[in-house]
Amino acid sequence: MTERLIDSLASTDALSAVFSDASLLAAMLEFEVALARVEAGRGVIPATAADAIAGAAVPDAFDAAAIAIRARASGTIAIPLVDALRARVRATNPAASTFVHWGATSQDVTDTAFVRCLVRANAILEPDHLRLVDALRRLSERHATTVMLARTLMQPAPPTTFGLKAAGWLGAARRSGAQLAASFEEACLLQFGGASGTLAALGAHGPEIAVALAQELGLRNTAAPWHVHRDRMASLVTACGVYTGVLGKIARDVTLLMQDEVAEAAEPGGTSSSMPQKRNPAGCAIALAAAVRVPGLVAAFLSGLPQEHERAVGGWHAEMPTVTAIVQATGAALAAIADAVEHLQVDADRMRANITATRGTVFAERAMTLLSPIVGRDEAATLIARAVEDARLGRQTFGAALSASTRDHAALAHVDLSDLDEPDAYLGAAEHFRRHLIDDE
Amino acid sequence: MTERLIDSLASTDALSAVFSDASLLAAMLEFEVALARVEAGRGVIPATAADAIAGAAVPDAFDAAAIAIRARASGTIAIPLVDALRARVRATNPAASTFVHWGATSQDVTDTAFVRCLVRANAILEPDHLRLVDALRRLSERHATTVMLARTLMQPAPPTTFGLKAAGWLGAARRSGAQLAASFEEACLLQFGGASGTLAALGAHGPEIAVALAQELGLRNTAAPWHVHRDRMASLVTACGVYTGVLGKIARDVTLLMQDEVAEAAEPGGTSSSMPQKRNPAGCAIALAAAVRVPGLVAAFLSGLPQEHERAVGGWHAEMPTVTAIVQATGAALAAIADAVEHLQVDADRMRANITATRGTVFAERAMTLLSPIVGRDEAATLIARAVEDARLGRQTFGAALSASTRDHAALAHVDLSDLDEPDAYLGAAEHFRRHLIDDE
Amino acid sequence: MTERLIDSLASTDALSAVFSDASLLAAMLEFEVALARVEAGRGVIPATAADAIAGAAVPDAFDAAAIAIRARASGTIAIPLVDALRARVRATNPAASTFVHWGATSQDVTDTAFVRCLVRANAILEPDHLRLVDALRRLSERHATTVMLARTLMQPAPPTTFGLKAAGWLGAARRSGAQLAASFEEACLLQFGGASGTLAALGAHGPEIAVALAQELGLRNTAAPWHVHRDRMASLVTACGVYTGVLGKIARDVTLLMQDEVAEAAEPGGTSSSMPQKRNPAGCAIALAAAVRVPGLVAAFLSGLPQEHERAVGGWHAEMPTVTAIVQATGAALAAIADAVEHLQVDADRMRANITATRGTVFAERAMTLLSPIVGRDEAATLIARAVEDARLGRQTFGAALSASTRDHAALAHVDLSDLDEPDAYLGAAEHFRRHLIDDE
Amino acid sequence: MTERLIDSLASTDALSAVFSDASLLAAMLEFEVALARVEAGRGVIPATAADAIAGAAVPDAFDAAAIAIRARASGTIAIPLVDALRARVRATNPAASTFVHWGATSQDVTDTAFVRCLVRANAILEPDHLRLVDALRRLSERHATTVMLARTLMQPAPPTTFGLKAAGWLGAARRSGAQLAASFEEACLLQFGGASGTLAALGAHGPEIAVALAQELGLRNTAAPWHVHRDRMASLVTACGVYTGVLGKIARDVTLLMQDEVAEAAEPGGTSSSMPQKRNPAGCAIALAAAVRVPGLVAAFLSGLPQEHERAVGGWHAEMPTVTAIVQATGAALAAIADAVEHLQVDADRMRANITATRGTVFAERAMTLLSPIVGRDEAATLIARAVEDARLGRQTFGAALSASTRDHAALAHVDLSDLDEPDAYLGAAEHFRRHLIDDE
Repeated sequence: MTERLIDSLASTDALSAVFSDASLLAAMLEFEVALARVEAGRGVIPATAADAIAGAAVPDAFDAAAIAIRARASGTIAIPLVDALRARVRATNPAASTFVHWGATSQDVTDTAFVRCLVRANAILEPDHLRLVDALRRLSERHATTVMLARTLMQPAPPTTFGLKAAGWLGAARRSGAQLAASFEEACLLQFGGASGTLAALGAHGPEIAVALAQELGLRNTAAPWHVHRDRMASLVTACGVYTGVLGKIARDVTLLMQDEVAEAAEPGGTSSSMPQKRNPAGCAIALAAAVRVPGLVAAFLSGLPQEHERAVGGWHAEMPTVTAIVQATGAALAAIADAVEHLQVDADRMRANITATRGTVFAERAMTLLSPIVGRDEAATLIARAVEDARLGRQTFGAALSASTRDHAALAHVDLSDLDEPDAYLGAAEHFRRHLIDDE
Repeated sequence: MTERLIDSLASTDALSAVFSDASLLAAMLEFEVALARVEAGRGVIPATAADAIAGAAVPDAFDAAAIAIRARASGTIAIPLVDALRARVRATNPAASTFVHWGATSQDVTDTAFVRCLVRANAILEPDHLRLVDALRRLSERHATTVMLARTLMQPAPPTTFGLKAAGWLGAARRSGAQLAASFEEACLLQFGGASGTLAALGAHGPEIAVALAQELGLRNTAAPWHVHRDRMASLVTACGVYTGVLGKIARDVTLLMQDEVAEAAEPGGTSSSMPQKRNPAGCAIALAAAVRVPGLVAAFLSGLPQEHERAVGGWHAEMPTVTAIVQATGAALAAIADAVEHLQVDADRMRANITATRGTVFAERAMTLLSPIVGRDEAATLIARAVEDARLGRQTFGAALSASTRDHAALAHVDLSDLDEPDAYLGAAEHFRRHLIDDE
Repeated sequence: MTERLIDSLASTDALSAVFSDASLLAAMLEFEVALARVEAGRGVIPATAADAIAGAAVPDAFDAAAIAIRARASGTIAIPLVDALRARVRATNPAASTFVHWGATSQDVTDTAFVRCLVRANAILEPDHLRLVDALRRLSERHATTVMLARTLMQPAPPTTFGLKAAGWLGAARRSGAQLAASFEEACLLQFGGASGTLAALGAHGPEIAVALAQELGLRNTAAPWHVHRDRMASLVTACGVYTGVLGKIARDVTLLMQDEVAEAAEPGGTSSSMPQKRNPAGCAIALAAAVRVPGLVAAFLSGLPQEHERAVGGWHAEMPTVTAIVQATGAALAAIADAVEHLQVDADRMRANITATRGTVFAERAMTLLSPIVGRDEAATLIARAVEDARLGRQTFGAALSASTRDHAALAHVDLSDLDEPDAYLGAAEHFRRHLIDDE
Repeated sequence: MTERLIDSLASTDALSAVFSDASLLAAMLEFEVALARVEAGRGVIPATAADAIAGAAVPDAFDAAAIAIRARASGTIAIPLVDALRARVRATNPAASTFVHWGATSQDVTDTAFVRCLVRANAILEPDHLRLVDALRRLSERHATTVMLARTLMQPAPPTTFGLKAAGWLGAARRSGAQLAASFEEACLLQFGGASGTLAALGAHGPEIAVALAQELGLRNTAAPWHVHRDRMASLVTACGVYTGVLGKIARDVTLLMQDEVAEAAEPGGTSSSMPQKRNPAGCAIALAAAVRVPGLVAAFLSGLPQEHERAVGGWHAEMPTVTAIVQATGAALAAIADAVEHLQVDADRMRANITATRGTVFAERAMTLLSPIVGRDEAATLIARAVEDARLGRQTFGAALSASTRDHAALAHVDLSDLDEPDAYLGAAEHFRRHLIDDE
């Protein structure tokens, strides 16, 4: 059965295709064909057997639904797949059928085929990552001097720049994207160990066949089979978890900026079924949904790590749906946020206006740094509190109110508060940090 | 795309069908038809419009793949579905197309349609639950007097009965199954609130239309829409989580009993691709995989609960794939364990033999309760330790060794240790507890 | 070592005390004393032994730090505690020391002592729950007619009332609080099974001693020991998970309402270290932190459920810190939100002003219900879009703009749009739903 | 309150001390002193103020309990700590009190102090990691030729060596330990951004003060403050998650090998409270408990990543208890498994005996590779099945039975099956893989 509707926000078409029955089936058959070819090349099985196997391994000839059903009885999709392949080989070359899956075990073919799907998934994620990083860099450069409220605990704080905010997003995306790419590289390995992880059925040929098979399939080989040592796959899914969280942070910020009362930035978004005037942050919804789902999926993977002896019962069987869901959610979030950032509408005027709307109260900290060294913290606090109150009640701005009270104050009269409320004058190292983040590849 | 192969151990055919595109699409269309009928019945929309909508709402005429793709742009499958329905209505009755989805919002149709899928899922889980409970009760009765080693921290402990072990499984399955059934009942509610959860577009008719719509769809109505109050759905998924853990406990015990060195019980299991002599605990693997996956999925659901205002961005969007995965995994585990328990092969002789193989050392506690009141704990411990050592070294059984040392001991000579190693004589309240568990419905 | 600082937002003083060394130590000693008394009362151990044990079981005489260290060697705090108790009994009455912990196992004393801590925790949570429910009810009644924007996907939607919003919070709090109370009741059970869960060391006396022991300790007894069947404890922690999510939803809404640009409601909050003008949503931060942490902790508990045979290795050992963290976080969130709601400052004028600030565009849905039955959806949509655009550009309000275009429209001239922008006129069933939620105990 | 008893298996003394109130308090005060010194050094604050602050920052003078309580009101431990420090400074030098915490924000001091605790934690984990790696290498070398059953899905499979099994553990421990060390290095950074992450209160001096402050505290500085970009901390906790899973795998294998019926290897373990003959796998219990708990804790951390704007409400507040629990559990598991492996008792004879006890049936795969190329898979399968059956029924070993049937078979008579049941003859690449794992640093 398909569950495209239920999973519609949890994947992309391209990623869905990667993990589809057709794709996995093809990858499994490619494993069996490559194995036969490599074994035939080393004289382990007859060359005619390899040809017969290659001839029979036509994906369209296999019934994924039937294989899935039979998998429940044997605990693996490999057994019904191999049975079906053997039956097809037998139909044309009975002798060759003996050599189907020669020396391999179920986990060899499923793990390796799945890894090849992951390689393809990585190839889909990578351009979206580059697109996002590029869009963030441009966004940050464009808004290097665009002032806006910082907001801490969702309350207004002294200003920052939108350029720095975007550069912060960029830094996190770049770091977690790099880690994800590295972990794909680490995890995408040939699995080939035979029944017990010793390749005993291949006698002395095991290691060399492994090397050749890895080469044939375009995968890296490892020091030893990793059948029950899933730490590299774990690092891949945790890297997805971190990246999804980073994307969720961008999405959360955008949804907050997109509120009607804030209106500082907006993704193009989607329409509403009942409210014609509305534009919904649909891309952010996809990313935030991923950020909600993926952590639990990561936990599911990690909790399966203590796998029994030379092949786990349960822990291993839990992996494929979990990794698939994680990678698809990550990819869906990445595509959505890359789109959202590429088309983000930024309202610099509104950003400045929202600072002004605080009537200068967000500069209270600045006032404290100016006044307290002169009159001490307590007196400064009293003066500032009074000016904040004036500003709150709308009598005058914080700067004006404070200037009024310092003007006649012996010790403070000389303090220049004329640009106290001026956001551009109180940005500290914002541009310094922004540049470092941009340059920090 | 289909992912039947990747999800083959994570669902059953029946549950896959429940959450398929065809099923969800049909449920969404049924919502729209029922809504139109109920509104027409109360004069809120023209009767002809309801007829036109019903006529157009033919599931096969809708393209699930296209709807899924468009869902990514709008953040919901409801908008493209409603658009497609409206287009079909317009083709036959342009005036009627205005009244498609009248007064409803996207969440009304998706939540309600999804709930109806859950109702069907529950109908699939229930018979498997009854089957499991029944099989466990029979298993327990059959083995009321079958002695076996208890094992604590996976080390041998004084004996218990297999009947009590099975009754323990039964008690937990019965409790968690009852809670799951109750939580399905609680959670399977009509969702109907319109744009803001006030049904404002229906004027004064809102509540009565909700009542009638619930009735039409065979669902319970609630005090108010539950659009952002997902606690009942949360209780449903947590109940799945608890039940899956209970099934995982049965599976873990069976896999341990099924080890070649233990060989006390076995599920029929499946074959191995490379090892002709082997039978794998395939059913237990499915249940243990579910027990690994579901807790993280439950966390994913729970962490989406803090939903913003009147419709969440992200938290809500994360739910459907999560709940679907949880319910399917629970159902797959339940079916697998019901099968495993129904066909469990129990070797009562081996159970007894494994007790014997400890050479009586598991009765050291019993010896302590017999000797220590007479000679004190320290002296008793010394005597017992010596007898345990004898048994360990294979000189004689623990009982024989201990008898030999107490025979000449003034204070202990009268203590009857003749049945010290006799499992049936040291079962305590095993049968009492077993009966209470059986009767505790 | 204490970790009060690190856990400061993760618990309350009262709950910290419940799970403190002093509290757990006392509860363990109470178990041992009660066990001895009950056994002496039935002649299973000498009465003098029970007296000696009671005399020795003085909490202050035990060194929690030393017990904790030794627990790492034995895998349980029970063994060093029982050893220490036995040593103290031996010092005054050597013969009595034999009867310390008679017939019990480590899990009996730790589980039961822990359960008694949970009973005390429940007694702390309950009044906060009642306080919250009461405050929410009053808040909802007070604001039954206070209109405010509904917000879906964090975008403005047609109005609702703050009374309904508060009633939604109330409904969820009431439901999840009731479920939590019920699950405490279900889970707070005596654990008493002896080495293998059969109470074999007590011969025929086992069940009656269990009954008496439960009574002595004020706990319910069960059909059988629940040593490896942790589903009831699981239901307790999942109920905490659901309730924490509900509290997180209230907190999220409040933090959103408390934004400077929204300013519709505020908790009293706390001060900032660097920003004198600021008030931070400190209570909401505690609740949201709990809502972030607890789901993962729930997953941790659930993933430990498949416990091996008659005592788990690992799964059981993972429970105490997990449950403790969950219950404390739930209690901290509950106390914080009860405080926040009791002292919530609501600005009804600002709520209305924020509706006005949308210039009527949130009533576009209402306009659609009025116009589309007459001129069809397409023409209505065109008219509405134009009026929305006018409102967006600040030319006039949506209602005025729409009235202007319908005035000269033959079919629409008679439609009364005079109160189109009037929030109070478009509340639908808000009050109906609110009342039902209030009454739905 | 202390919770040493409840957390006794969840930490070690050394790690407990690192995260204790005393430790965190000292680290926070060190931050404030270093900040003042650095600022005084650059003329930002008076040198006398720095001296006064340093003089007042005596850890013992602060009341952690009082600070923890006040933290609940303000949402951070920094505010009450800074208040208390300021009060102490004021008592000796009122003017200096103005310059306490100058230019910093709450998150600067708490994040940085916490990071310094993590640096110390890492210093505790590292030697245990080295100890474990060293013990595993020696174990593997010692048992390079020790044959044992491989076990897949917990069923017997063709043999492997204990050396390879230990080398597999080693490889995973080495990889995940290296990743953990790298992630500690990456995450242990100075946090210093001031109110909004721009260091605006320090004017042009911000970045240089950050550099100097990092140096003073022995931490790395970053391109920019990381206040809401927690990806590096996330990578640290996920690395803990992976390593804990790896430790859990070792523990699970050891508990399985330690079963009385298997008895191939054992950790020294601990005693039982009720069963004098028993040794419990106490170290494995600690590691498996960590492997159960940590994945959910990792999910908790990840789900807090989407942090709002320039300081999160909730997501940040959830971190400290979560990271603390993760690092302590990882360290407890690591110490326990290092101990267990260092003192692992291996019974090579029993390993061989358990192979023998299968009566050769685990060599059925080997027989298939020998016979099927000659007579085809089907006939070979029939012959093998018959021999397996003979062996199962105890008539003769699999090898003897098979030899008997091939002896008279025209095509198979020449096949040498004399060493068919010989484990040492069917180890394939076991030693090859083992050597590669050992060498693969």
